[in-house]
Amino acid sequence: MNFHTRKWIKPEDLNPNGTLFGGRLLEWIDEEAALYAIIQLENTRTVTKYMSEINFRSSARKGDIIEIGIEVVKFGSSSLTLACEVRNKMTREVIITIDTIIMVSLDENGKPKPHGKTQVEYVKDRLAD
Amino acid sequence: MNFHTRKWIKPEDLNPNGTLFGGRLLEWIDEEAALYAIIQLENTRTVTKYMSEINFRSSARKGDIIEIGIEVVKFGSSSLTLACEVRNKMTREVIITIDTIIMVSLDENGKPKPHGKTQVEYVKDRLAD
Amino acid sequence: MNFHTRKWIKPEDLNPNGTLFGGRLLEWIDEEAALYAIIQLENTRTVTKYMSEINFRSSARKGDIIEIGIEVVKFGSSSLTLACEVRNKMTREVIITIDTIIMVSLDENGKPKPHGKTQVEYVKDRLAD
Amino acid sequence: MNFHTRKWIKPEDLNPNGTLFGGRLLEWIDEEAALYAIIQLENTRTVTKYMSEINFRSSARKGDIIEIGIEVVKFGSSSLTLACEVRNKMTREVIITIDTIIMVSLDENGKPKPHGKTQVEYVKDRLAD
Amino acid sequence: MNFHTRKWIKPEDLNPNGTLFGGRLLEWIDEEAALYAIIQLENTRTVTKYMSEINFRSSARKGDIIEIGIEVVKFGSSSLTLACEVRNKMTREVIITIDTIIMVSLDENGKPKPHGKTQVEYVKDRLAD
Amino acid sequence: MNFHTRKWIKPEDLNPNGTLFGGRLLEWIDEEAALYAIIQLENTRTVTKYMSEINFRSSARKGDIIEIGIEVVKFGSSSLTLACEVRNKMTREVIITIDTIIMVSLDENGKPKPHGKTQVEYVKDRLAD
Repeated sequence: MNFHTRKWIKPEDLNPNGTLFGGRLLEWIDEEAALYAIIQLENTRTVTKYMSEINFRSSARKGDIIEIGIEVVKFGSSSLTLACEVRNKMTREVIITIDTIIMVSLDENGKPKPHGKTQVEYVKDRLAD
Repeated sequence: MNFHTRKWIKPEDLNPNGTLFGGRLLEWIDEEAALYAIIQLENTRTVTKYMSEINFRSSARKGDIIEIGIEVVKFGSSSLTLACEVRNKMTREVIITIDTIIMVSLDENGKPKPHGKTQVEYVKDRLAD
Repeated sequence: MNFHTRKWIKPEDLNPNGTLFGGRLLEWIDEEAALYAIIQLENTRTVTKYMSEINFRSSARKGDIIEIGIEVVKFGSSSLTLACEVRNKMTREVIITIDTIIMVSLDENGKPKPHGKTQVEYVKDRLAD
Repeated sequence: MNFHTRKWIKPEDLNPNGTLFGGRLLEWIDEEAALYAIIQLENTRTVTKYMSEINFRSSARKGDIIEIGIEVVKFGSSSLTLACEVRNKMTREVIITIDTIIMVSLDENGKPKPHGKTQVEYVKDRLAD
Repeated sequence: MNFHTRKWIKPEDLNPNGTLFGGRLLEWIDEEAALYAIIQLENTRTVTKYMSEINFRSSARKGDIIEIGIEVVKFGSSSLTLACEVRNKMTREVIITIDTIIMVSLDENGKPKPHGKTQVEYVKDRLAD
Repeated sequence: MNFHTRKWIKPEDLNPNGTLFGGRLLEWIDEEAALYAIIQLENTRTVTKYMSEINFRSSARKGDIIEIGIEVVKFGSSSLTLACEVRNKMTREVIITIDTIIMVSLDENGKPKPHGKTQVEYVKDRLAD
């Protein structure tokens, strides 16, 4: 699991009970999965197709810092399957886990398009070519 | 399935590909589930605990109007299980479905609290008492 | 009056005094009027032309759930006149009323365009054709 | 009419037709009226009570710069009546006018509270005391 | 220094410590500089190129009203150099100062484009021609 | 320079010219600096005090993915000095650089408070104690 993006929980991210609004967290996860897939598949037309069950294991409070982890589970021909874990940066307490997020690479007509990737690549290696 | 809340897809709701950003849709669904549960359980300390798998069946475009449907699946002692379907208001095309969303009623200490409800109630009937 | 869309008052919707920011409420009403008119007139180029006087009769607090009601007052040749009432979902207390909201149907050049509608239609009936 | 606050129309401010979303404009006006009244009445517990009819006379497009003008109409004992005009900064074309916006000064219990003001004051004169 | 745009600090503008989020303030300043330059240079393709050092001299709290001042420092051939000061409207306390903000006028290809301006102009004088 | 947080440029992040709004970028940088400092200083009352000059070296477009890098320059007694670079994730093109961002640790009264830190620590090492 690679933890990259971090968020600082601000008042605008809270539900009326004063804890992190779950909808905001799902929005952040979907963005992170999308950008991770776009980087790997080198195709900006990559969309979320499926998420497996989501467990809200703990919450976060105003001022907490969380980090969003993404891991590749599997490369399909036009898809990329990811797993996600969000945790509190300071305590490492797990906030949410999603075992399977399927991202699909599309062509200009919105149809699935083979991406030709079979393993995780790093941008720095691509640029080194 | 009762369809209440409607959204008009505006530029701020789009992903860079020009279709509805999935994260925004998940945010809207989580808010709708939360407010539906709060109305039923008459407890504002109600939080999302679990969502079953999510299928993004179709997308929506700028200017589309979507409606979010919620249905009660089951009353637990401190929980309420909902199902959700989001569809295009004009064409009735289904955009997303979630079979199980578990909302939990909490007390002031954040512990599950029995809500004593066993069936759907309408606010107008409560007020008629 | 048909009450569809519901909103959960979150911290981001409050004014500095801790009650619902009036500007946010007006934003929600304008969106609801627009989408209601678009559905009825079957024209996405529908804009707000006029609102009659607005009475802020009561406010709402963080965690309240409000619902926005819209009713057709009159079909003009290129316009649709609506009335709006926003109330607290739990107590039915009225928050705001607007007697007249005039929406106008436009063509591609931004000029009023007759819509040919004379009564409220339901999408399910249109689809049943 | 004093024109102070200016806004730059960005993509996030547009409706799906690509013109300024009316609801966003109403939000901006309400904020401007509130802060103008707070400055005059020297009471942060000042809320919008009433707006007279609103005419959307023209729209604005992405990249336009608009300015919001506020003028005092009348000082009541616990209220302040304002007028508002929003115009395009470059062309001076009027976008919206509202003849009467009534702001009310409240005490800590949310009840109207006399503000003791009878004319427009400038902060620099107050500070000069 | 001309103070035009005013902002009312709302809950959505706060950092988790309950004071004005510095990032929000920088966003407001950048917008104000951009729209000021666009008005002067009469070119909507005007972008921020450089900001000199930024001193956060004091903060602001929820409910405060701030005003953003902009002043022209120098007209270059394709640039406009501005200075900025943000202060609390009620107390005149300075919140932030930036001595140099360089805005650049661009052509359709994103290349610097001479603007032909050498002094501050007022829209009302242009329109009077 | 450690690159953690990534952002996907969405329509809501654009200026009217269709490139990344500079104000939004400054907002993201300020949040990243704040949360980096909070993690290092283990004090949530950490605020931005100063930023050195900011060069907007290139822009970003809708759909681009950017990453925000932060590096520690110096530990003061109650401050932490950071450097920042934002670059395009795919091309590694530099978008903005800021040599010096001074964050200050505060006590409950908003006065500078010594943090006792002299070098970068990793949360996983703290937790291993």
